Amino acid sequence: MEADGRGRGAVPGPEEEAAEERARLLAVARGEQAGDVAFTGGTLVNVYSGELLPANVVTLGERIAYVGAREPRLGPATRHVDCRGLCLAPAWFEPHGHHWLLYNPAGLAEAIVPGGTTTLVGENLFLHLAAGASGTARCIRAVADAGLPLRHLWLIRVMAQSGWEGEGRAFAPEAVLPLLELPEVLGVAEITRWPQVWRGEPGVLRAAGRARALGKRVDGHTAGASHEKLNAVAAAGVTACHEAITAQEVADRLRLGLWTMLRHSSLRPDLPELVRAITETGLDTERLMLTADGPNPGWIGENGYLDAMLRLLVRSGVPPVQAIRMATLHPATYYGLDGELGGVAPGRLADLVLLPDLESFRPESVWSRGREVARRGRLVAPVAPIDWGSLGLSLPFAAPAAFADARLYRPRAPGEVLPAVEAASNAITRGGGYLPWDGESPPAGALLAVLADRGGGWATRAWLRGFAAGLEGVATTANATTHLLVLGRDAGSMAAAAARVAEMGGGFAAASGGRVEWSLPLPVAGLMVAGGFDEARAGYAALEARMRAAGLTFADALYAFLFLTCDFLPAWRLTARGVLDVRSGDLVAPPWEFGRSGSGGGPHAAAARGTAGEAGA
Amino acid sequence: MEADGRGRGAVPGPEEEAAEERARLLAVARGEQAGDVAFTGGTLVNVYSGELLPANVVTLGERIAYVGAREPRLGPATRHVDCRGLCLAPAWFEPHGHHWLLYNPAGLAEAIVPGGTTTLVGENLFLHLAAGASGTARCIRAVADAGLPLRHLWLIRVMAQSGWEGEGRAFAPEAVLPLLELPEVLGVAEITRWPQVWRGEPGVLRAAGRARALGKRVDGHTAGASHEKLNAVAAAGVTACHEAITAQEVADRLRLGLWTMLRHSSLRPDLPELVRAITETGLDTERLMLTADGPNPGWIGENGYLDAMLRLLVRSGVPPVQAIRMATLHPATYYGLDGELGGVAPGRLADLVLLPDLESFRPESVWSRGREVARRGRLVAPVAPIDWGSLGLSLPFAAPAAFADARLYRPRAPGEVLPAVEAASNAITRGGGYLPWDGESPPAGALLAVLADRGGGWATRAWLRGFAAGLEGVATTANATTHLLVLGRDAGSMAAAAARVAEMGGGFAAASGGRVEWSLPLPVAGLMVAGGFDEARAGYAALEARMRAAGLTFADALYAFLFLTCDFLPAWRLTARGVLDVRSGDLVAPPWEFGRSGSGGGPHAAAARGTAGEAGA
Repeated sequence: MEADGRGRGAVPGPEEEAAEERARLLAVARGEQAGDVAFTGGTLVNVYSGELLPANVVTLGERIAYVGAREPRLGPATRHVDCRGLCLAPAWFEPHGHHWLLYNPAGLAEAIVPGGTTTLVGENLFLHLAAGASGTARCIRAVADAGLPLRHLWLIRVMAQSGWEGEGRAFAPEAVLPLLELPEVLGVAEITRWPQVWRGEPGVLRAAGRARALGKRVDGHTAGASHEKLNAVAAAGVTACHEAITAQEVADRLRLGLWTMLRHSSLRPDLPELVRAITETGLDTERLMLTADGPNPGWIGENGYLDAMLRLLVRSGVPPVQAIRMATLHPATYYGLDGELGGVAPGRLADLVLLPDLESFRPESVWSRGREVARRGRLVAPVAPIDWGSLGLSLPFAAPAAFADARLYRPRAPGEVLPAVEAASNAITRGGGYLPWDGESPPAGALLAVLADRGGGWATRAWLRGFAAGLEGVATTANATTHLLVLGRDAGSMAAAAARVAEMGGGFAAASGGRVEWSLPLPVAGLMVAGGFDEARAGYAALEARMRAAGLTFADALYAFLFLTCDFLPAWRLTARGVLDVRSGDLVAPPWEFGRSGSGGGPHAAAARGTAGEAGA
Repeated sequence: MEADGRGRGAVPGPEEEAAEERARLLAVARGEQAGDVAFTGGTLVNVYSGELLPANVVTLGERIAYVGAREPRLGPATRHVDCRGLCLAPAWFEPHGHHWLLYNPAGLAEAIVPGGTTTLVGENLFLHLAAGASGTARCIRAVADAGLPLRHLWLIRVMAQSGWEGEGRAFAPEAVLPLLELPEVLGVAEITRWPQVWRGEPGVLRAAGRARALGKRVDGHTAGASHEKLNAVAAAGVTACHEAITAQEVADRLRLGLWTMLRHSSLRPDLPELVRAITETGLDTERLMLTADGPNPGWIGENGYLDAMLRLLVRSGVPPVQAIRMATLHPATYYGLDGELGGVAPGRLADLVLLPDLESFRPESVWSRGREVARRGRLVAPVAPIDWGSLGLSLPFAAPAAFADARLYRPRAPGEVLPAVEAASNAITRGGGYLPWDGESPPAGALLAVLADRGGGWATRAWLRGFAAGLEGVATTANATTHLLVLGRDAGSMAAAAARVAEMGGGFAAASGGRVEWSLPLPVAGLMVAGGFDEARAGYAALEARMRAAGLTFADALYAFLFLTCDFLPAWRLTARGVLDVRSGDLVAPPWEFGRSGSGGGPHAAAARGTAGEAGA
């Protein structure tokens, strides 16, 4: 992969060096030299031919040199791995991941590599919101150089998830499209507002055209789109979709030429339904893939990642080799990386799993680039920490006091009327009309929801019903705007939580009786911990316990916040443009320019404009 | 495809123009505008889902806009095609073709488009030998601009087929590798001397590395390579092979991660054997493709092209949709063009066939880029002639008299000893020891074979047995060296034929009694007619009749000449380096420097060095 040749010394030149490495690999392939690792006596899951076959495998350096019946030559430094009783398969490849569900890219590696996933195609939304295109490029570079056992590849966002005044500048094509040329970038990230694709907005068509010209991909997000509407989405150049939630939607996407991903995780556990497209409709699986699509840390800790999907698929009656191809060869082929990944064959990177059987999918060991990185569910190669602080990914904030400003959490005038957002699930809200602010407290059963500009310029306010009605005050940057989302029933507690998050430079804080009782710093782009997976998992557990105690019933305690501010999900949403009716596009209520009209003034607004980094300049 | 955006005016810029075209396509996809062609009532061969489904299809310009149940909007300019009783499939895609078997790229289009093949990945060997890298680039451009109904895409040769003194310079990496960057070029062409790949020669590894870095492919040619040897070939980065001649060889290649092509044509009619890999071994077909690999014009005229293979596959028991995928979606996916070609889906180029059934594969009509180009076996769109003379692809020759030089066809001294090459088939020869030249005629049953430098500098001579022993004199440039191959029993006839070919600047000539009786000018790179397919077919028919009359028993009368000078086929071959034992690499007999030592002198040798055009400089 091109990503491999970078960041090395230039003597000899990368091309000559690569040729020399290959020449050594060939000497092992020919049996003239010993390899680094010899796997003998196992059963190969041959994803190319669709067979299970006995085979020995020899690796040298990062790559596979030999696959076949020959007894490997063992040198003094060759490690011999006895695979009798084990199956050898290519490691899993996640084609549509997110690395920022409290965990960061390094923490995610710790969590999912032991289950066998060694490649993940992620995307840069929050990197971009925090630090623009150059911040994204810095992060991609740092992650590539960190030598993680999980190979991170990338898709690039070409539009935001939530409208705000700086959006047009932040996602300007001249800022965003050059990122598509990076070797670690495989295409355009999911275009969540698919009606813009359907309508053929020029920016979307231009981005898709650029990806196509570069031989790269355009990830779709066509939640709920009918077969009829999908026609225009496919015609726009979208190449894949992961949003099917029924077997029929799988068929609709596949038949129109989209590579189709079957999704299953805390976000939506849909596989039992989706698998019917194979077991009942009988669709060919050649262009189907599996994706976990960003589960929360708790779900990963309990269930795993792509390994969890493989267990389910095989239990549902899909033949194991067919299931494994959907998590290996197909994503590699989709991204044009099948010469590098996705199968066990000479010349490929040695990303392997050794499996005791083809039902449990709990690897005996996991190998990435020829190194053993996990054994029996535990990492054996340490994950070097990434110095996130040096990457300029922290969110800029106005002074914390601005968010403790009592006016934000009190009526501007007695009896002020706010729109009421009814939360129905993690992903769905409804419009609930308008309700007056009687006294200081929210209406019964409702919370006050405030989306406050990190720069202190504006605030969008609404009632929120159906959502953890017992909360006194919680604040977080973990939402699709990265601005400060503050929810609660108690003005003092909301103010305290909000000020704490601003102090931390991003994260979660919960307060009660006006005092902060719990906080979770998320210094990386306002959404990720700086530490390892355990920190993310413990943080999620604490958040979930707190939210359950306050009455939250939705499946996922993190997406509950993330999606409240998304302007691509129905129906009423808090955004920088105010409370928006996503279906009609109408503004339900404009934002309150509290910073400009009162306490904050100009500087806050300027800071807000600067939050997209240099891309907003 | 990138190839589409070139050669157009720059106002508006190609990117904006492309986005505008897409926007119009989307309006048709949404049903808001009428398309150019509406196909209704047919059965869609859905290569993505593996199904046969009723569907209407609407195109606009070059692309498909809509696929589904909707009744198409018909505008005043919309052509309505009633497809009741017909199947609609993507047009066939040839992943490994040659466009120079007497026909030229335009003539090949005439011949194979009516059978449904609208994309062919060819290669540049003879273009390069005639005119170097810049000649190749000119030809690729001219073919792309000709608007042929057959889309020619290209693989680039990185080494010659026959050693000669200028080879190293002609195929120098700095001359050859930049061609890989052309948008019409999809990778490195078949590396016929696969032992060089197996050994890991630096030039091969460098070329493969460059292709990989560009996201392109490396075509293999691993004739006879065992599973063990294929390991090093795959490790070198070769991505496909078309040389399997048994079901076992198909399995060997597929299992080691090579995309595997099943070949069938005049060169080798192997499909009845190869299909057993599917019908008996049960290999998965996901990475299998079909190739005709350069049949002679007679075979195409009688049998067809990929359509002939589809007929055979389905008759052999392969389900039709599975067979069709091997000639459509799989090659498109292999080359990373599945967003453009290989299936009937919105956004794809409208390359379609309408079939009365899924057995005969004789299209009712064929569409390329949204235009109907053939109907019931005949082209309906004229193929504009290409001005080959302007492309600088003609072969340079010394004065014709140099090739009439009687010394070439007579013993240098009484009883001179020459090596004897025994021809066993089109592709196989054997070493036959050494025989003396008694008197002026060749030994009984043998021909004299002379490979004469076009520049007049050297000549390699041998006896040739088992090959049309009745020939008095035939000469041709149609061999893998493009030098002048002269065969016969009669010195005067050989001299006359040789001089005629030199006069024509390439082609075939046959003489008897010292007089030329038949000739076929091949002015394009010494191997292709300048006219249409009929000229090539008639030329082949005349050649074949003449060769049969002289006793040739091999299946193909053209490959019989082409391969005599190939240094990658066993065993003894006539090359510029002399008579070579390909298996051992030993020189059986050196060439005779007749031009330098006698009549021709320096200028001839200099001209010989110049035959690879500027690449040889």
